[in-house]
Amino acid sequence: MLRYLGVDAGGTSTRAVLVDQDGTCLGIGRAGSGNPVSSGTEFAATQVLAASLQAVAGAGVPPEAVAGGVVAMAGGRVRAEPGWLNDTCRAGGLPVTFRLESDLHAAFCSATPEGEGYAMVAGTGAIALRVRAHEVDLVSDGIGWLLGDEGSGFWIGQRVARAALAALDGRGPATSLSSALLEQLGLEADPAGRIEGRTRSVQDAIDVLYGQRPVELAGLAPLAFAAPGDEVAESIVREAGEQLATTLRAVRTPGLTGPLVLAGGVLTRQPALAEQVHALSGGLDAPLLTDDGLVGAASLALRRNGVETTGPVFDRLTSTIARARSSS
Amino acid sequence: MLRYLGVDAGGTSTRAVLVDQDGTCLGIGRAGSGNPVSSGTEFAATQVLAASLQAVAGAGVPPEAVAGGVVAMAGGRVRAEPGWLNDTCRAGGLPVTFRLESDLHAAFCSATPEGEGYAMVAGTGAIALRVRAHEVDLVSDGIGWLLGDEGSGFWIGQRVARAALAALDGRGPATSLSSALLEQLGLEADPAGRIEGRTRSVQDAIDVLYGQRPVELAGLAPLAFAAPGDEVAESIVREAGEQLATTLRAVRTPGLTGPLVLAGGVLTRQPALAEQVHALSGGLDAPLLTDDGLVGAASLALRRNGVETTGPVFDRLTSTIARARSSS
Repeated sequence: MLRYLGVDAGGTSTRAVLVDQDGTCLGIGRAGSGNPVSSGTEFAATQVLAASLQAVAGAGVPPEAVAGGVVAMAGGRVRAEPGWLNDTCRAGGLPVTFRLESDLHAAFCSATPEGEGYAMVAGTGAIALRVRAHEVDLVSDGIGWLLGDEGSGFWIGQRVARAALAALDGRGPATSLSSALLEQLGLEADPAGRIEGRTRSVQDAIDVLYGQRPVELAGLAPLAFAAPGDEVAESIVREAGEQLATTLRAVRTPGLTGPLVLAGGVLTRQPALAEQVHALSGGLDAPLLTDDGLVGAASLALRRNGVETTGPVFDRLTSTIARARSSS
Repeated sequence: MLRYLGVDAGGTSTRAVLVDQDGTCLGIGRAGSGNPVSSGTEFAATQVLAASLQAVAGAGVPPEAVAGGVVAMAGGRVRAEPGWLNDTCRAGGLPVTFRLESDLHAAFCSATPEGEGYAMVAGTGAIALRVRAHEVDLVSDGIGWLLGDEGSGFWIGQRVARAALAALDGRGPATSLSSALLEQLGLEADPAGRIEGRTRSVQDAIDVLYGQRPVELAGLAPLAFAAPGDEVAESIVREAGEQLATTLRAVRTPGLTGPLVLAGGVLTRQPALAEQVHALSGGLDAPLLTDDGLVGAASLALRRNGVETTGPVFDRLTSTIARARSSS
């Protein structure tokens, strides 16, 4: 029985799973950020190695028993030259030549063994992709917080901040987002106080927010979903759904009906938004939701090594990996 | 006859003017960026000193003959503690104790000697202010590119980039802004080429734009005004005008009708936009346009030293400074 490693190397944590060729999970492992773009290739490679060795040890097999593997991660450029990862693994006692795959593709493959279909991933960023012949062949958006990512967590969070401050600044309609923003930032509301002609609360908030990295505005997105009945918040959420659906429709192709996979916190934690995106998607089947790309990385590890991940194998991957994760 | 220095310390250049107490320009000077926030206090102080000494030398008087002065600049915090500037000037042979004033106030004072009214300044950023009893007592917006500055040059430029890329990305309506953006960035249009499923032109553009500082998107704003008949561009410009007018109305006060001053490149170089903002301002008189704050800095230098800048003095400031600038 041949064994393969599937690794989901994310910005927060890295998860690894060792599976055999019938899809049974043999061991899992976990480590820190494996994203080479945000954490650097050296740190990321070490985390992938650590999580992988943990999965192998949990299975009670020697590292030499691993026949191949796939690591799913963001960042097309670092994926193109996988030496930074494989050299570290070999030097660290794991003689596996990993193949590097897109984290977006892994998200799609976590939800379905089909070779064609669509995925919409909306977390801090937002991107739609089309899968055909088991490859991602078309994407739309995913071009970052400054130029795109319409409807993403950043997009929503920035609109929350802008609307909250516009109201405090006398430029926008009153909204409960103003007090929610100040509370989240740990600031006192001070509607009468002014500093150089500006409402003090506005000045306090911009001092805090410009002290952060811009992408941290994504942390304000949950406020938009926690303001029932607030027209400003509801219109931000509604417009986010419309933007995400527009992006999805940009990769939609007549005749390619395959499953629709929705991934990323903005969609998986907000069922109403996910339903809106599906409803506007132009007649695709009910969406499949997935939290991360671990099953997909394992599924790709099998497929890239010539193992068909047909129904029973895929079902075994899903159920045994879920069981191993819940008991770890 | 007492003499005073007015200095407009901007992010690109610093201009100084020496005037006597009847408003006659005696000499002018110019140096590099005097903005202490972007250029550092040491560099900024040296530029203010250089421009001032040049103005004094041009007038043929010794530095000791200067009775006082005002430097107009952005940045409330650095204005509150003017030691960084005055120490440098004293050490550099200019024994003047400058008073530091807001560049926004100087813009208002460049256009009118009135002690109350409104100004809307829209360049890279956008801010509205109310002047009362010769002081700025209320502002709205001006809270920066990430959180506000609605309708500003940055705001317009970012929308130009987003709309241009959305069209290339299949997510937005076709617009001539797409080809204009690629041309401005020096990129070839390649509508069929793809890289990792993404239109190559989109990838090329984001590689360039993320290599710049975010505020440099303001440099794309002119494209929105150079696309007659393009619905996408026209709607960006129209919405910018509405946003600027909304910000202006936020400082509008019944009973305070005073002049409306419009400043900043977005308004002074785009007469149609300036007219739209005025038309939506709620019945203010025809706007006064001003390019910078040099006359205002000189006017404030006189006023802060007890000289009334009534009609004839103000008219003399305006005409003699304009004459000196055009012949320098």
